[in-house]
Amino acid sequence: MILMPQKEFEVNRGIVEISGKIKKLEAGLGVKSCESQALVAEPEKCSPAGSFDVNSSTADEQVAESFIRQAMEIIVDEAVKKATNVQEKVCEWHSPEQLKKLLDLELRDGGEAESEILQRCRDAIRYSVKTSHPRFFNQLYAGMEPYSMVASFIAEAVKTNLYTYEVAPVFTLMEDAVLRKMIKVIGWEEGGDGIFNPGGSLSNMYAVNLARYRYCPDFKEVGMFSAPRLVILTSQECHYSISKGAALMGIGTKNVYTVPTDERGRMIPSALEEKIMLAKSEGAVPFMVNATAGTTVLGAFDPIDEIADICEKHNLWLHVDACWGGAAIMSKKHKHLLKGIHRVDSVAWNPHKMLMASLQCSAFLVRDKTSLLQHCHSARASYLFQQDKFYDVSYDTGDKSVQCSRKPDAFKFWLMWKALGSRELEQRVDRALAMARYLAEEIKKREGFRLVLEPEYANVCFWYLPPSMRNLPESPELWKKLHTVAPVVKQRMMKKGSMMVGYQPLGEKANFFRMVVISPQVSRQDLDFVLDEIHNLGKDL
Amino acid sequence: MILMPQKEFEVNRGIVEISGKIKKLEAGLGVKSCESQALVAEPEKCSPAGSFDVNSSTADEQVAESFIRQAMEIIVDEAVKKATNVQEKVCEWHSPEQLKKLLDLELRDGGEAESEILQRCRDAIRYSVKTSHPRFFNQLYAGMEPYSMVASFIAEAVKTNLYTYEVAPVFTLMEDAVLRKMIKVIGWEEGGDGIFNPGGSLSNMYAVNLARYRYCPDFKEVGMFSAPRLVILTSQECHYSISKGAALMGIGTKNVYTVPTDERGRMIPSALEEKIMLAKSEGAVPFMVNATAGTTVLGAFDPIDEIADICEKHNLWLHVDACWGGAAIMSKKHKHLLKGIHRVDSVAWNPHKMLMASLQCSAFLVRDKTSLLQHCHSARASYLFQQDKFYDVSYDTGDKSVQCSRKPDAFKFWLMWKALGSRELEQRVDRALAMARYLAEEIKKREGFRLVLEPEYANVCFWYLPPSMRNLPESPELWKKLHTVAPVVKQRMMKKGSMMVGYQPLGEKANFFRMVVISPQVSRQDLDFVLDEIHNLGKDL
Repeated sequence: MILMPQKEFEVNRGIVEISGKIKKLEAGLGVKSCESQALVAEPEKCSPAGSFDVNSSTADEQVAESFIRQAMEIIVDEAVKKATNVQEKVCEWHSPEQLKKLLDLELRDGGEAESEILQRCRDAIRYSVKTSHPRFFNQLYAGMEPYSMVASFIAEAVKTNLYTYEVAPVFTLMEDAVLRKMIKVIGWEEGGDGIFNPGGSLSNMYAVNLARYRYCPDFKEVGMFSAPRLVILTSQECHYSISKGAALMGIGTKNVYTVPTDERGRMIPSALEEKIMLAKSEGAVPFMVNATAGTTVLGAFDPIDEIADICEKHNLWLHVDACWGGAAIMSKKHKHLLKGIHRVDSVAWNPHKMLMASLQCSAFLVRDKTSLLQHCHSARASYLFQQDKFYDVSYDTGDKSVQCSRKPDAFKFWLMWKALGSRELEQRVDRALAMARYLAEEIKKREGFRLVLEPEYANVCFWYLPPSMRNLPESPELWKKLHTVAPVVKQRMMKKGSMMVGYQPLGEKANFFRMVVISPQVSRQDLDFVLDEIHNLGKDL
Repeated sequence: MILMPQKEFEVNRGIVEISGKIKKLEAGLGVKSCESQALVAEPEKCSPAGSFDVNSSTADEQVAESFIRQAMEIIVDEAVKKATNVQEKVCEWHSPEQLKKLLDLELRDGGEAESEILQRCRDAIRYSVKTSHPRFFNQLYAGMEPYSMVASFIAEAVKTNLYTYEVAPVFTLMEDAVLRKMIKVIGWEEGGDGIFNPGGSLSNMYAVNLARYRYCPDFKEVGMFSAPRLVILTSQECHYSISKGAALMGIGTKNVYTVPTDERGRMIPSALEEKIMLAKSEGAVPFMVNATAGTTVLGAFDPIDEIADICEKHNLWLHVDACWGGAAIMSKKHKHLLKGIHRVDSVAWNPHKMLMASLQCSAFLVRDKTSLLQHCHSARASYLFQQDKFYDVSYDTGDKSVQCSRKPDAFKFWLMWKALGSRELEQRVDRALAMARYLAEEIKKREGFRLVLEPEYANVCFWYLPPSMRNLPESPELWKKLHTVAPVVKQRMMKKGSMMVGYQPLGEKANFFRMVVISPQVSRQDLDFVLDEIHNLGKDL
């Protein structure tokens, strides 16, 4: 019998014994103590010391509000003003062991006073990397986007989930509006469906699941134990979420067949067809192709139109991972990169990347009018998706998701779009690509810098050769030496805090830097600085 | 050839032609126009009209900062002060069609002025449900938690992802600290591992994936096409994410065997053993049991200790979905509900539920010291998880995840825990359960109210019988009539905006209300109000 003993509970005196009620007298942090209640002349509402008050709220909204206001000041000063100031450091590097000491991470029995918590807020910001600094180029997101940031604050403050219209009326409609608009921009004239996910990886997994469901709806119920071996085709440059998805979904990483790419990192359509035939000859069932629009490292765009021809011929689901490259579709000048996207079955597109929506903002879009998303994922939980509600329950979109709780991420994109309009979003893309072009030209001019390839999109990949290596003959030894340069330069820039630029190897290629310019805060001068600084940090190597 | 023509690009004059640069003169919203630049006497940085400026930042940080400050005022006034005021409405109901008109959802080519965007912020808050209102009881989250809310603002402003220590040093260490503390509280004396996920559903799916991986690591590579039929065992009252996970992961919903529950909704251990034997007799392979600690509707706790005995005997992975009930472990008084949890293999626990961390805050914990999480999910992307970094790359936790981008949700729990201490968290749980007890007793006293069962946890489930039904004999007709009461009462409370309480059917049981009291803002008076209001809204039925 694990019910609470009823005799312990005397509600008229409001006494439920608990051990050791701790009053935070020193700080009054959001919790009314009995003493402070007594001061406002309501002693009858207080329980005796060591007992428990159910008669009145034990939250002090005024203290909470004051704390929130003070914290907001800190956020604006430290995480907005200071973090975006080019004169400040991008990061204040500490090793994990050092930082552990600085942060005092331990969680204790007693709470801390307001002043201490505010200092912890300052410290959390101080020691975090300033991804909105104009010299942060380390990932495929960067910069400060005020509208989207504010929308994310509102979403946090309003604190709700997207599963039902009932608890998220505003965000449900906004998600719908944003999805419709994105679908229109993509050019699916007959419409489609979609959902925002916590990241592009999940969007790609949705594509795999829908493709599989379309191939055989029975898998949802019976699993894949007696299924033929399913095969996903994707380029060797694709994002690793395709493999992660294959593993998670019971397909297996070996059943992701990687298609060779050309010298620019783009899938070779004839090689795709060969791999499809190979899979078929093995008795396996190719069921989907993942094309990438904007690969992570090189920024390559697979030729969608040609791939769509092949998918049509073989009746394969065509998904485009446009998480990074989807932004190009906003630009009249650059949308040709995605030529053929109106023909594909599904698209993953992250407005949190080049378009700068707050993290996360990841849309999955599907060109389907048969409620495939709903059929594939629904579980019809009766406690949440009651069918006897008084409003149109088709607005309860939660059963399209593999999640239950889901954040209203679309709102961030919606508010930003309202503020900027499609034209400003277009400019964001055009400017980013103009910046990449400037940087590429500058690299070609400078001694010791070498482009990995001409940029097709915003990714500018290059090696830096210190003077000591510049006159060495091309040889495996040179590349081996060069491979060690980027990690050292990276270490030095992090410790100095002057900027952050990513590096990586790729296939047989030695470590090289990858720059992506996203934020309108960045100027030509910042790009010149990056090249100067790499030289300064690495010239002795 | 899809490179940008290089001749178009003349960097010395900063001219890159784009069509139709739109200047937001009326608002100056975060974008410097050439005109405003000219006013500060830097005309040489401006490109001619209709062209494109790469020479300097086109973001205006001062305008952005001012916008953010004004928006923060709105958030505090509307989403904190007003939203938590018991005198205000919980929701301002509008049908989807009405609300679409009120919100003007369309996304256009041109942007809007600052004043319009600020009004959109107000509207988004106004028409959203006030989940932090003291009379919001609709979900398993509620109330305003200032520390966690502030932490979520900081996380949004700092804008980063948890994949590497390099870009998220602070949050990486905080996640580690929180996970370690949670593991300690659970009682895994030899430690363990874990990760925060975007929701408990994903945590439950992680459990399925780890259990499957432990059973057969080869599935990760080869998929399940030649595997024996795998079976998951869970109670019929479990969360629907177990089924969703089985579908997504290629196991199939039919291979989720539901174990009968007792009259309180708890899994019957002997029935579990029968189902295991049944699966085996069919030639299937049971590989994991999901026990629920705190079911969604009834708040039932499966008997973990007894289930652990069975899992040990049959060598099955034991996962506990403690998303809702995990909070009880913070309470000396109530932790007995989770007796045996120190023996299980994995736990899902959402601090965003009873402990009130901001959404989402969902931990998956695993009692494993062999890096199972890493082995099961890793893809070793070389662009992100470079092994030649200058710091200890074991702090790059991203490859433990099926995601790539991942929010620093642990920070919300960390800051809250620092502010409140374990003791205040304990009180939060004790008070919630005392409130539930009060409500249950009150229901028993009141005419027309009937408990579905004595609460074991914070869920109080009850029917309301309008006077017209009170003297009818117990019969299928009565229950059929009663089934229609809750939806109507719900509709009326939503339209009035006086409170929000959930309802649902369960098995053969007619629609009943489910109340959960979470927030310290709630007083006994609010609970009395709920019962009075249900009667007022439904007495004519």
